[in-house]
Amino acid sequence: MSLIVTGSIGIDTVLTPTGRADEILGGSAVYFAAAASFFCPVRLVAAVGEDCPPAFLDTFRRFNIDLAGLEQRKGSKTFRWTGKYHDNLNIRDTVDVQLNILGESQPPVPAGYRDSRYVFLANTDPASQMHLLSQFPNRKLAIADTMDLWINTQRGKLLELLKQIDGLVLNDSEAVNLTGQTNLILAAREVAKLGPRVVVIKKGEHGCLLHHPEGTVALPAYPADKVVDPTGAGDSFAGGMLGVLASTGQTSLAGYKQAVAAGTVVASYTIEAFSLNRLTRITRSDIDSRLMSYRDMLRID
Amino acid sequence: MSLIVTGSIGIDTVLTPTGRADEILGGSAVYFAAAASFFCPVRLVAAVGEDCPPAFLDTFRRFNIDLAGLEQRKGSKTFRWTGKYHDNLNIRDTVDVQLNILGESQPPVPAGYRDSRYVFLANTDPASQMHLLSQFPNRKLAIADTMDLWINTQRGKLLELLKQIDGLVLNDSEAVNLTGQTNLILAAREVAKLGPRVVVIKKGEHGCLLHHPEGTVALPAYPADKVVDPTGAGDSFAGGMLGVLASTGQTSLAGYKQAVAAGTVVASYTIEAFSLNRLTRITRSDIDSRLMSYRDMLRID
Repeated sequence: MSLIVTGSIGIDTVLTPTGRADEILGGSAVYFAAAASFFCPVRLVAAVGEDCPPAFLDTFRRFNIDLAGLEQRKGSKTFRWTGKYHDNLNIRDTVDVQLNILGESQPPVPAGYRDSRYVFLANTDPASQMHLLSQFPNRKLAIADTMDLWINTQRGKLLELLKQIDGLVLNDSEAVNLTGQTNLILAAREVAKLGPRVVVIKKGEHGCLLHHPEGTVALPAYPADKVVDPTGAGDSFAGGMLGVLASTGQTSLAGYKQAVAAGTVVASYTIEAFSLNRLTRITRSDIDSRLMSYRDMLRID
Repeated sequence: MSLIVTGSIGIDTVLTPTGRADEILGGSAVYFAAAASFFCPVRLVAAVGEDCPPAFLDTFRRFNIDLAGLEQRKGSKTFRWTGKYHDNLNIRDTVDVQLNILGESQPPVPAGYRDSRYVFLANTDPASQMHLLSQFPNRKLAIADTMDLWINTQRGKLLELLKQIDGLVLNDSEAVNLTGQTNLILAAREVAKLGPRVVVIKKGEHGCLLHHPEGTVALPAYPADKVVDPTGAGDSFAGGMLGVLASTGQTSLAGYKQAVAAGTVVASYTIEAFSLNRLTRITRSDIDSRLMSYRDMLRID
């Protein structure tokens, strides 16, 4: 089924306690699309500037990603982000951010993409997310990500968006911020009352909480003893999840659990290297094999 | 099989954001013994002072706990602890602590307890834990708990203890403190190198990490939407775990997973009320029913 993602492509510089990587391919749409592409073809709507290294585009071509919606805009500069992780890799500081093209007009959605059935609105301001959403009138499922910045500064618009989407993916601290509830099960329930029937709260190394009309499910992360760079874990998780939802069409609780498990496993690969360096080196069968381990780990006799 | 626990009995005062309870039954051995007693008979070695309310002893009698090792010492006072939880119930401050009888000599181990096969050394100083351990020469399995205080002030003794036990149960922050490793999978591996073949890292609302020679397993907490008082969750978890290990005798990874799942579920009941107020109101079949839900939650098709 047709899965589309709209979001950012960035030139990232990442500093970790054990290394650094300069000017690497990053951005929410990038991690999402690469992760989802293991499960179904992905349409990408995003924009880069003239300064985007050709190698980035070569990397995209290694995945099952349709690039008709990727605009390279003359006279513009690509979004740039520099982040530094603490010794505890769950904590990071944004050292520098240059919005560049993300502060300009949105890239156009190709006419051929209007029939997209599964839509992921990666993190951007909620007004833009609603504008994008309106361009997919035939959607079966729309899921969005958000962040503290919009919860704090665009709450009204965010609440409007929440009424229009089927699912919301957000971090634990964001869920607490949005609802005022420190108990995450209650926080997820509160978010669901605002619109989305499915709410997925990401807890980093602690896994995720899935709120679904059929029940609430907590699932752990895949135990990772090698974490090089956590950047993109959340977007990879969402990518794997939407990729499976789009490929199976199963939006029951059981279907979502399969999807969340796949997202969990893809994210566990993403963090083993900088950028897409690990995802470019694995195949669907690597993912399936780790998924089997994950399932076995969770089987209690 | 014979399961013995040595640890504290306390008169607790607990303040939470939504309520408080004064002078209630608490202490590591209490929560452990009550939780374990759903799965097998439990022998308790602990001491209280003259001031111990008779109602506390009545509460013990509602569980399958052998009280031959419970000493009520004339002229002594019971251990007292006052704790206050933050809005985020994962964080608490100790407002007041009066060691009282815990600072005196250990209660004697009844001769009839020397044949105990399964031993849990609840949190106390490691020298005392070793002394207690030496009194169970026929043990099949010994598991201990510890805390930051001993890691920081009695590291040498703690390292001695670790060589003598089969398993260690500790919190995530304690595991980081003990090993200097912020990645919990690596931290658990490091702890295992110090002696215990099994290491269980408790992560509160995020569940636990089980390191076993056959593999590493992350399991979530049971999703709890009603948390009245988290006190005793960790000891209840350990109690459920040891109770199942003692009753099945299965120390394979699969056996430990069953045990950890049971501990997870008993702990989820403990936190629904102050003290043992919830555990006195449930039966084994309530636990089995929630265990079934937990298993189902973790089943990915």
